[in-house]
Amino acid sequence: MSAGKVTKLNKGVVRQDLAMADGRQIFYYDKVDGSAEISRTAVDARAKESRPGVGELRLDALTNEWVAMAAHRQTRAFLPPKELCPLCPTKPGLESEIADSNYQVVVFENRSPSLATPNSGWSLPTYEGITTPVVEAAGHCEVICFTDEHDTSFGKLSLPQIRTVMEAWIDRTRELSKLPYVQHIFPFENRGEEVGVTLNHPHGQIYCYSYLPPRVEKMFYVAKDYLSKHGRPLLTDLIAREVQDEVRIIAENEHWIAYVPFASRYPFEIHIAPRKFVPDLAELSEAIADAFPEIAKEVLLRLDGVFGIEMAYIAAWHQAPVRSGREALGLHLQITSIRRAPGKLKYLAGSESAMGAFIMDMAPEQSAAQLRDVKL
Amino acid sequence: MSAGKVTKLNKGVVRQDLAMADGRQIFYYDKVDGSAEISRTAVDARAKESRPGVGELRLDALTNEWVAMAAHRQTRAFLPPKELCPLCPTKPGLESEIADSNYQVVVFENRSPSLATPNSGWSLPTYEGITTPVVEAAGHCEVICFTDEHDTSFGKLSLPQIRTVMEAWIDRTRELSKLPYVQHIFPFENRGEEVGVTLNHPHGQIYCYSYLPPRVEKMFYVAKDYLSKHGRPLLTDLIAREVQDEVRIIAENEHWIAYVPFASRYPFEIHIAPRKFVPDLAELSEAIADAFPEIAKEVLLRLDGVFGIEMAYIAAWHQAPVRSGREALGLHLQITSIRRAPGKLKYLAGSESAMGAFIMDMAPEQSAAQLRDVKL
Repeated sequence: MSAGKVTKLNKGVVRQDLAMADGRQIFYYDKVDGSAEISRTAVDARAKESRPGVGELRLDALTNEWVAMAAHRQTRAFLPPKELCPLCPTKPGLESEIADSNYQVVVFENRSPSLATPNSGWSLPTYEGITTPVVEAAGHCEVICFTDEHDTSFGKLSLPQIRTVMEAWIDRTRELSKLPYVQHIFPFENRGEEVGVTLNHPHGQIYCYSYLPPRVEKMFYVAKDYLSKHGRPLLTDLIAREVQDEVRIIAENEHWIAYVPFASRYPFEIHIAPRKFVPDLAELSEAIADAFPEIAKEVLLRLDGVFGIEMAYIAAWHQAPVRSGREALGLHLQITSIRRAPGKLKYLAGSESAMGAFIMDMAPEQSAAQLRDVKL
Repeated sequence: MSAGKVTKLNKGVVRQDLAMADGRQIFYYDKVDGSAEISRTAVDARAKESRPGVGELRLDALTNEWVAMAAHRQTRAFLPPKELCPLCPTKPGLESEIADSNYQVVVFENRSPSLATPNSGWSLPTYEGITTPVVEAAGHCEVICFTDEHDTSFGKLSLPQIRTVMEAWIDRTRELSKLPYVQHIFPFENRGEEVGVTLNHPHGQIYCYSYLPPRVEKMFYVAKDYLSKHGRPLLTDLIAREVQDEVRIIAENEHWIAYVPFASRYPFEIHIAPRKFVPDLAELSEAIADAFPEIAKEVLLRLDGVFGIEMAYIAAWHQAPVRSGREALGLHLQITSIRRAPGKLKYLAGSESAMGAFIMDMAPEQSAAQLRDVKL
């Protein structure tokens, strides 16, 4: 049992880096109170297994969009019973992904990553229609476990717990930005079987793309154009509009504002944005980061309160790309839920899926009112 | 009982135009053999009800994409039992959308359209960031019933039945192109509860947008760029690549080819394209239209044969926009299915939904082989 590298972060959070049996890295993030110390030394005692190879990036020439092909992922775990949960801490009879018998927040490389470390000399070719060569699906995929408790959810964590998750997100964004082949970092959470979640343990993921994802590329283009025409970031003016209109605001505090966007696409869609423009999590000030847990928790509790059931959602951190557009694209969290009523989901069918044309059945002002009316 | 306007189309198909109780139009498409005549005179005897108002188009300023708000659609029929099917012909005890007691193919305006006839003087504003005004959700939405038999599916229709559907699609594209506020016409079928189908009766829809849907706008830009650089339509060169690679071809005949595209996004994705470039259904030659039913039927039977279950799918006709890019964007049908294995669906979660970055778990060559291996 040997201790790993120790790094001190904000808010008394300490990161300890260890290796997993198959060579992957695992990072323990612990908030240490006062002079107490937490030493992470537990060894991953599982049999070594070989890592899957890296997949392919193929260009869809009809849209000039990259599609990642990860053909080895078909067999991944599908809703294992709780006693076999690979995200719970290790205990007698269960050797999970986390060797220790407890943790606060951990991050580790995905066992079956969609995007992985490329061979040296990798570079992304420019688009050349149908003659664009296939390249390795370069990138990096991590899992972030929000708590070692299996039967809870992000919105039910305590404010200090959410702050520790925030510190881990900030640290991961800073660290992963150093990988030379990474262009964009995307921390997100899929919650609920309705959005295909295969593990119920509260967790998120961090995808690092070696290309600009199509939606980011479009937002990037729009935001740069807006900045050059108006001299202000688009997100700043969007927030000013929401403040002025008022009817779509769900929650706010000194540093953050949560609203149903003017042109929302999903029955329940909430954006949580810092009032002051910042490109990404790595550049968030400590004061602004400190104010996030409160508003995030309120928003998620309101979301679960609308129908009195745990809402399935996708919570997606939109950040500026790592190496471009950092003055134009602003950090914000987009939470989208496809549930439009108890027993009724919104499906992305022909218009949304094939045309990209969203049809909303519910006025944004109506869903904002429903979210505000929830008694907490 | 008065007969409606009669129009003779190709292949002995006759269209008869009648009015519904609430003022909507209904079009009967009948293939008439030899000297026989089918006269459609049945009157819609339901109580008159007022039509819903037209919704709003709001600009999502983060992406410069229009979102249609159709707040009146929340209450629409949700999987009614077979005996209350609004798409079956009218019979004792059931006054459906179709007044006659039988039909071959009918088309009528959607009762709760997402896009509707705007007031006169309507025009689409150009994008101006957050100051873009809200406008009426102009457009037109039709339902097309493929057969009066409730318990069947498009792929099980006879070849002449599919040819009559094809003639109706061609006629609708030609007629709807005349509406001055229509920019793009999109015939499609959603099949299966997994993609949110609310009525099991075999039917499709035809959406007419008053703006270029985001995915079409992107494909339009890419196709125009390709044409200007290479002097040939992109789709022509894509088909040549598929013919050369051969491994992803599923079916072909003299005029059409069906393949899993090189960079497919869904576990089972099949494109059916005419070998000769044509912008839309309205410009399809009779000989090429005649060759479609055979390949469409084969492809859909193969799709159902992969797992021996009725596959949920979205079948989407991609055409050139009505008034632009007609030399660049070629007609083809994209069929996508989210089923990756029995009991396993592909969900569009964080990466696909929030980033637009598709991750495929299955090689296109593998799904092509599975589709080819189905014994018909």
